[in-house]
Parts: sequence; C-alpha cells; structure tokens
Amino acid sequence: MKRLFIASNDAARIAELFRSELPGHEVLTEPLEGGPPVSYAVVGRPQPGVLAGLPDLELVLSLWAGIEHLLALREIPDHVPIVRLVDEGLAGGMADWVLAHALAWHRNLGLYRDFQAKREWSPQQEKLARERIVAILGAGALGTPVAEHFVRFGFQTRVWSRSGRAVAGAQSFAGREGLPRAAADADILVNLLPLTPETTDIVDARLLAALADGAFFINGARGRHVVDADLLAALDAGHLSGAALDVFRTEPLPADDPLWQHPKVIVSPHVAAPTHPAVAVKEVAESIRRFERGQPLPNTVDRSLGY
Amino acid sequence: MKRLFIASNDAARIAELFRSELPGHEVLTEPLEGGPPVSYAVVGRPQPGVLAGLPDLELVLSLWAGIEHLLALREIPDHVPIVRLVDEGLAGGMADWVLAHALAWHRNLGLYRDFQAKREWSPQQEKLARERIVAILGAGALGTPVAEHFVRFGFQTRVWSRSGRAVAGAQSFAGREGLPRAAADADILVNLLPLTPETTDIVDARLLAALADGAFFINGARGRHVVDADLLAALDAGHLSGAALDVFRTEPLPADDPLWQHPKVIVSPHVAAPTHPAVAVKEVAESIRRFERGQPLPNTVDRSLGY
Ligand SMILES: NC(=O)c1ccc[n+]([C@@H]2O[C@H](COP(=O)([O-])OP(=O)(O)OC[C@H]3O[C@@H](n4cnc5c(N)ncnc54)[C@H](OP(=O)(O)O)[C@@H]3O)[C@@H](O)[C@H]2O)c1
Ligand SMILES: NC(=O)c1ccc[n+]([C@@H]2O[C@H](COP(=O)([O-])OP(=O)(O)OC[C@H]3O[C@@H](n4cnc5c(N)ncnc54)[C@H](OP(=O)(O)O)[C@@H]3O)[C@@H](O)[C@H]2O)c1
Repeated sequence: MKRLFIASNDAARIAELFRSELPGHEVLTEPLEGGPPVSYAVVGRPQPGVLAGLPDLELVLSLWAGIEHLLALREIPDHVPIVRLVDEGLAGGMADWVLAHALAWHRNLGLYRDFQAKREWSPQQEKLARERIVAILGAGALGTPVAEHFVRFGFQTRVWSRSGRAVAGAQSFAGREGLPRAAADADILVNLLPLTPETTDIVDARLLAALADGAFFINGARGRHVVDADLLAALDAGHLSGAALDVFRTEPLPADDPLWQHPKVIVSPHVAAPTHPAVAVKEVAESIRRFERGQPLPNTVDRSLGY
Repeated sequence: MKRLFIASNDAARIAELFRSELPGHEVLTEPLEGGPPVSYAVVGRPQPGVLAGLPDLELVLSLWAGIEHLLALREIPDHVPIVRLVDEGLAGGMADWVLAHALAWHRNLGLYRDFQAKREWSPQQEKLARERIVAILGAGALGTPVAEHFVRFGFQTRVWSRSGRAVAGAQSFAGREGLPRAAADADILVNLLPLTPETTDIVDARLLAALADGAFFINGARGRHVVDADLLAALDAGHLSGAALDVFRTEPLPADDPLWQHPKVIVSPHVAAPTHPAVAVKEVAESIRRFERGQPLPNTVDRSLGY
C-alpha cells in the first residue's frame, strides 16, 4: 500500500474522491507518523516546507495546469517527476471563457449595453469573423482547443509557440523571431503561455504596439506575463480598445490596483479554467496507475524548459 | 438582356455589386419606362405596391433570411418563386452573436462585472459546458450551425424542428408534441425559428415554465415569436435569469417599451446576423444564374409552410 498526500484547498473532498478512485492506496491530508512513507504528493499551491518534509516522494501531481510556483519552491528533487493537470474540464473551461470574451468584443456587446442604457437603437456596422485576425500565444493543452474554436468561427487564426506547433486551419509561428509576425495587425491577442523566465513580461509595449489599432487583449494565463504599466498605457492611448484579465501579478487583485476601475478593463477573479475536482482526480489517479505500471507519463514538466 | 430591380436599403451600392457580378443584366434601382420588363426583384423590405407594379416578375430574391413580410404583402403571384438568403455571412453572424451571449451567461460575465464595480474578488463555482442543457428552436440554415458550435463546446444540445432534423452530437425533437421535451429543464433556450402562423407567440408562459430555474433566453429570430408579457413575468418571478433579445414586435423598439430598462434584459438593435452585401450579392447572383440554366433553386420558400 502506497501513501498519497493531498496538499491543496478542498483537501478533504479531494481525498474522498481519491479514496474511491484508488482504493488500494492510503490517502492523507495531514502528516501521519508511522506507516509507509508518502510516495505521491497531489498539490495545488503547497505551503513552503510541506514537500521538503516528504523525503520518499516518487511523484508530484499538480491539480493545476500552471506549475511555475512548484518550480519556484525548489523543494522537489530533480529525479521526482512533476505531472501537471491537463484535462477536459480545464481545456473546456478556458475555451468557454476566452471565446465568451472574444465573441462579446467581436459583436460589440459592450457598445450595445451602453446604447441600451440610453434607449438608443443604433445598429453598428458588424464585422464578419473572417475580417478579424486572432493571435494566440501558446499552442498547448489550452491554446490548441481555443485556437480550434476560433478557426471554426471563421476568424483568421494564428498560433505562436516555441516549436511552431500546427493547429489545423491556423497559421503557426515559432520562437522569438516569429512573435512580431504572429502579433502584427491582430485584432484580438490571447495569452495562453506558461510562465517561465522566457515568457515573463512578454506582453509589453512593443508587443502591444504590433497589434491592430483598437485591438482587444485577453489574458487567461498568468499576471506576470504582462507589463501592467505598458498595458494601461496602450489602453489609455486608445491603441487598445479593451482587455479581459483573469490573472494578475498579485492575487487577489489589491483593492487599490488601477485595473479594477479602468473603464476598458474587464477583471475576473482567476476563474477562467478552474479545476473541477471530480474530473481532475480521475486524471491524476490515471497518472498514478500509469506510473505504477511503468508506463510513460504524459504532461510531465520539462524542468529545463520550465513547463 | 434581363432586368433586375433592387428594392432595398443601400440600393445604389447593391446595384453596383450586381452590375459587376452579372454584367449581362440591366440593374435598376428606380422604375424605368421602356426597355425589357423586370424579371427579377431583389428585395429587403419593399414598400407595398412596388412588387405589384412588376407584372412580368419571374423570381423574387430576398436579401434577408426571414421572408414573412413578403408573404404578408400578398403581392407575389403563386407561380413566382421566392428565394430567401442563406449565406455564410448570415450563418456566421448568427453563430457569433448567439454564442457570445450564451457563453457570457454561462461564464457569469455579468456577475463578475458587478463584482468588479465593487472591487470584489469573488470567484464563483463555475460550471462545465457539459453540465448545461441548451435547447435550440429551429434547425435550419441558422439553427444548425449554432447547434454545431454548442455541441463542440460540450453543451448538452437539443434541436427542435418540424421534421426532427438531425444535427450531429445533438438530440433531435420534432413537431408540437416534441416541444415540451425539447425545452424541459433547459438552461439556455435559443430561438431560431422562421415566423409563420404555427410559430407566432410560441415562446409563451408554458414554454418558459418548462425551462430550468434560472434559465437564459436568446432570441435571434423574430419579435413576434415571443409573448413579451409572459417573458417579463418569467424574468420578474426569477424563473428566468435573463434574456438577450435582438428582435422585437415593433422595431426600432419604442422608447417606452419596458424591455429597454429591464435589468435582466439585454437589447440589441436587430444586428445578430446582418446581411453583408458583398457576400449576399454573390449568393443571389448565383441563384439567378441557376434559374437561367433551369437548375433547381435551393432555399426556395415553401408557401404552404410559410418558410
Ligand atoms: N486562468 C486560469 O484559470 C488558468 C487555468 C489553467 C491554466 N492557466 C494557465 O494557462 C497557461 C497555458 O497552459 P497550458 O496547459 O496550455 O500549457 P502547455 O500545454 O504547457 O502549453 C504551453 C504552450 O506555450 C508554448 N511556449 C512555452 N514557452 C514558450 C516560449 N518561450 N516561446 C513561445 N512559446 C512558448 C509551448 O510551445 P511548444 O508547443 O513548442 O512546447 C506550448 O505551445 C499556463 O500559463 C497556465 O498557468 C490558467
Ligand atoms: N436577427 C437577425 O439579424 C436575423 C438575421 C437572419 C435571420 N433571422 C431569423 O432567423 C430565423 C431562422 O432563419 P433560418 O434561415 O435558419 O430558417 P430556416 O432555414 O427556414 O429554418 C427553419 C427551421 O425552423 C423549423 N421550423 C419551421 N416551422 C416550424 C414549426 N412549426 N415547428 C417546428 N419547427 C419549425 C424548420 O424545421 P424543418 O427543418 O423541419 O423544416 C427549420 O429547422 C428566421 O426567423 C429569420 O427571420 C434573424
């Protein structure tokens, strides 16, 4: 019998789900003296020291897609693989959220809300999706399905990744030198990159300047991808018409942050792609079973790349 | 050389597009004495008397998808086919607009806007698309692509039509007796029916009562499909959480209509699927060419059904 330790919000509920999914394992939510050592840690954002206190760890399983905070802890030995969460719930959630904002902007819903407040019947010249360019940064577990939806709606869709990953119907761009071309004249910029040293502060004045006038920015990835001052400047200059932000450099977003009340900024409290425990636990349990059968583990973090 | 008469808004621009698309035809925007008789009328909402004044008409081509106003005129002889507009621009526009509202509601964008106004960081329990039921009334040129998008996002999707038309991944329901089952417990109701005697006032207290508590209603079809008093009662009773309405019994919506200022109603000025002249003229010209080659005409209105 192997021990599994849960270090996450909602640990009691998640433990229950694991107990029925992996009945042959012991599932702990508090450290317990005696018995077998802890082999698996299932984590959200563990407190510093928690993972360091588990010397027999064989595998770390993240309940989140983003794992930059786990690497930053520096408590997981190099030989212990970190598996990040990639599941249908996350990908579906992000797709719903990104497309909700993109389509609402594309179809002027905010403008019509303002007209409605004045009881003003004022049809605008509506554009077709094919008249808009969408650039998506990141073509991974979340960026790819998001790009596929944009393609199906008929948007001119571009994806940018490290390796130039292909998405059917979209144009692919690779690496630093591909970034300016991916962003050039885009009407909608969607950020779905992992946070690594290479991608930190990537959404800066230069990148925003490359977009079409009146462009809309959607950030579903991490706050530290964005230079907030540059984003605010582009909004205030009128170069960007708006931004939908789900993630921030500090979360919860501090009450005095100018993003809260900026008329062109839409804030949501890190809810774009929440982990749905019932879905996630099945995925994580399957990774554990694969590990125990000696099978390769998809979605293992590449420490050298940071994602 | 045959004559083509344009009776629509923006007639000069549309005529120019036809002149380059059908160079062998004469294109008029005003009645002209002498010369050949008018064979084709290309119409938006023609004034009464205009079509009656064209006795040699062979074919009427609508620049809109909905043609109930043409039948109501009673000026088009039974032997003259009416071809309605079915094009990629219309279908794409409707899909963008319906999904914009459906996803915005699904992902609580209105709720987060209210929290943002109070600088309140307040993550909600977000649902997965697969936890929601969407019922679409009408599985035609517009209903089918809309249903396909809902299926791809993972919603439990139902379509209701006269004949029980199938849409891959969706459940089909047919005829009056299928309506209560199609609507039962739906979280989102989308109306994309044509306006006919059978469908007038179809969205009434009984249909709305069948929906799930807190459901959202989206009307992209015609105002006369909806019994406004029943809709307002369902909203005020809290049974519906909101409605996005693009079409109204009277358009423009009169300034004193309660829909304008109802806190749960989103009004747009009949812009869901506008006709894009450059796209539409190509479609209509192709219908004329098919007619002249004696080929069958898709999208011909069935007078007995009214659509
Ligand atoms: N807001 C929320 O609720 C929420 C929820 C879940 C996840 N997230 C965030 O969403 C983001 C995306 O997650 P994911 O699961 O889709 O990640 P992923 O599967 O690892 O995909 C990462 C993508 O980014 C590309 N990439 C990485 N480094 C790059 C670089 N230096 N230059 C260019 N491209 C680079 C990768 O390129 P290759 O294809 O060439 O490897 C890949 O296409 C993460 O930041 C995660 O934290 C947010
Ligand atoms: N808001 C806008 O900007 C805008 C723009 C364009 C169109 N529209 C409106 O959109 C609506 C849909 O247009 P469309 O081109 O998709 O129409 P369509 O292709 O004619 O499709 C009509 C659908 O409704 C079904 N139907 C008709 N009568 C029915 C009845 N009595 N009971 C059950 N189902 C019935 C048909 O069933 P079968 O499949 O069995 O025939 C078909 O699936 C129209 O009202 C049009 O006026 C609005």
